[in-house]
Amino acid sequence: MTEPALSRRRLVASLGGAGLALAAGGVGGFELGRRDGRPAPSSQEVPFYGEHQAGIATPAQDRLVFAAFDTAATTKGELRQVLRAWTEAAGRMTRGFAVAPVEGPPAAPPLDTGEALDLPAARLTVTFGLGPGLFAAERGLGLASRRPAALRDLPALPGEVLDPARSGGDLCVQACADDPQVAFHAVRNLARLTRGATQMRWLQLGFGRTSATTSTQATPRNLHGFKDGTNNIKSDDAAAMTEHVWLGRDQPQVWMRGGTYLVARRIRMLIETWDRSSLDDQQLTIGRFKDTGAPLTGSREHDPVDLAAKGADGQPVIPLDAHVRLAGHAENQGVRILRRGYSYTDGIDPLTGELDAGLFFICFQRDPEKQFAALQRRLGSVDALREYIQHTSSAVFAIPPGFRPGGHVGDALFA
Amino acid sequence: MTEPALSRRRLVASLGGAGLALAAGGVGGFELGRRDGRPAPSSQEVPFYGEHQAGIATPAQDRLVFAAFDTAATTKGELRQVLRAWTEAAGRMTRGFAVAPVEGPPAAPPLDTGEALDLPAARLTVTFGLGPGLFAAERGLGLASRRPAALRDLPALPGEVLDPARSGGDLCVQACADDPQVAFHAVRNLARLTRGATQMRWLQLGFGRTSATTSTQATPRNLHGFKDGTNNIKSDDAAAMTEHVWLGRDQPQVWMRGGTYLVARRIRMLIETWDRSSLDDQQLTIGRFKDTGAPLTGSREHDPVDLAAKGADGQPVIPLDAHVRLAGHAENQGVRILRRGYSYTDGIDPLTGELDAGLFFICFQRDPEKQFAALQRRLGSVDALREYIQHTSSAVFAIPPGFRPGGHVGDALFA
Repeated sequence: MTEPALSRRRLVASLGGAGLALAAGGVGGFELGRRDGRPAPSSQEVPFYGEHQAGIATPAQDRLVFAAFDTAATTKGELRQVLRAWTEAAGRMTRGFAVAPVEGPPAAPPLDTGEALDLPAARLTVTFGLGPGLFAAERGLGLASRRPAALRDLPALPGEVLDPARSGGDLCVQACADDPQVAFHAVRNLARLTRGATQMRWLQLGFGRTSATTSTQATPRNLHGFKDGTNNIKSDDAAAMTEHVWLGRDQPQVWMRGGTYLVARRIRMLIETWDRSSLDDQQLTIGRFKDTGAPLTGSREHDPVDLAAKGADGQPVIPLDAHVRLAGHAENQGVRILRRGYSYTDGIDPLTGELDAGLFFICFQRDPEKQFAALQRRLGSVDALREYIQHTSSAVFAIPPGFRPGGHVGDALFA
Repeated sequence: MTEPALSRRRLVASLGGAGLALAAGGVGGFELGRRDGRPAPSSQEVPFYGEHQAGIATPAQDRLVFAAFDTAATTKGELRQVLRAWTEAAGRMTRGFAVAPVEGPPAAPPLDTGEALDLPAARLTVTFGLGPGLFAAERGLGLASRRPAALRDLPALPGEVLDPARSGGDLCVQACADDPQVAFHAVRNLARLTRGATQMRWLQLGFGRTSATTSTQATPRNLHGFKDGTNNIKSDDAAAMTEHVWLGRDQPQVWMRGGTYLVARRIRMLIETWDRSSLDDQQLTIGRFKDTGAPLTGSREHDPVDLAAKGADGQPVIPLDAHVRLAGHAENQGVRILRRGYSYTDGIDPLTGELDAGLFFICFQRDPEKQFAALQRRLGSVDALREYIQHTSSAVFAIPPGFRPGGHVGDALFA
């Protein structure tokens, strides 16, 4: 039924077809992709072009489909064709258009699979990344000299039992939207567009609460039942984004200026264990109250986390191993990351009979080793929460900067 | 970490605890479950009590979490305790309340896991079912004489390659809501409430488009990209519901009057194969146009399906093996079912490297053998669509009628 092993012959055939198809619609025909015009109010569109890729500083949408791909490309040019085809298609889909008109030649497969027809853009963003493997000298793509120093596989870290089938990858596509059907459609159609040149390696769905029907849960709760994200970098805090997330002019690899690095970790929550622990245990583990999200030293969610406060017994009110203490930047030399995670559940773990559910954790930073890995080295060793979680997958990707109309993701890499 | 095998000792301990906890809140304390009162506008609540269980004739919500459980109950009374505890908890959750106040005794595990705090009811419905296995004489629950004749495991059917780990079960919980976090919370908390007495057997997430942001996709599209449901029974068509779905006074098992039967089938779509087939092939396979959903004999979605129409070549316009012809009641002696399916994707199939995605098909009917099985016997043999799909799981459950405040699902079974 399929050829899991990539073949160069299929690669060439595939890219030839995609290129041809895209060229055919390049004169504006794609604007008619959705038969009845654009159904979306413009407020449902997130700008696709700009200094940075969308989907990073963009306020988090409700749903995630994240996919990692391997590629059979053997030259820079072939890799570039994939990125160009993906960028062009994503540009259309993020505006609420189909990849191509459904009413194409009846004897050919439709270029758009159709399940998002008539659906709005739903704040779709598609964010692309390049894995470390593409830059290995032995890979032969001629990109070794363009590898940014910070782009490396993560070292082994405490608290992880990684599944290689859900880890790594040459390329990543993070599709976020307020509609899961729109996000799934985007990933599926990108996969289809470059089939043969790319092979999907793993895929993860993520969910959260539905913001359109929710006005009261301002900070979303994760599957531990706690508010998650209170102390996250605010994506409109330009100074913090510059300091912790965006690569600036000091980045020697010019093609990555304005970019960042994505770390993805599938963090399984041992839900049954957590659910059997007492409210006290849970709150001391996190360092916050479960109902309000307030730190144990306050009464409202955004009250300051007072790490020095001591109780009547002379002990810190926020325990030394509480998650909020160990993860916060106050005790991490100011190190911060921009988190953008989604809850997931993938059914029952056949080995234990327990729910396989937790947090698909995504973060963005200037340097994965100095930021995510440094934090996780400490959290995985001493955080009280480590008893209740396990990192089961890991991946790191270079996220090139944004691009202009006519350009494509990573175009400066090929200049 | 867990005890996948159910033990009677845990069963008793679990039910004792749940019973106690529920009793403690039974005087109205649970009404305070969500700290700040009910956040939901009443339009987001689906009535929980009534002649029939909610979640059947209820207009389909956007998201599904479906779970099947096995139970360690060895007496009718123990089974009844599970159903009573589930009903009481579901009654609160469907109104937007927590199972119990989060601010319980700090030394005890919270009775509600918390991730839906502050979220509205989100049209949550929780629908319960009983599997055939509970009624087997050798099971020893004393229910053999109460088995309705139509409640049987489905026979082997064409077009299926079933995974036993995703099939069957003693009990089912269908949680539907417009918010996936609300639906997941419901299933998780029911599982937790009766842990030891029940063990989750399998769990399936389903998604669809987001109705709150969609005005133009009236009939949802499935992952084949076609509109799906045009000819479904309209759930407000009382005559059709009575004829095809609800068990009436002629049902000799009195406890099932007002109930129905649920059949669940995980229908994997061979997406890569489908996506490589031409638009012509796709449209002839379904018997409808992809963009409009109109039958091949019409131009608008709700135009009549003219099975007799012939083209210039003298051949039927809607082919003899088209899905719309073979699945429609016109050619099935009037047999109909109420469908209520959701799209799913569960990542990559490790065997083929292809997407494991498709339709989690749920249908309701008066007799699974005479309705679903009769239809599938024909579809699985001659439907042109059978090339592109495969049924990978199967389950059947008796869905007892609705109940009144103070009652519980299936209460008449124990009378």
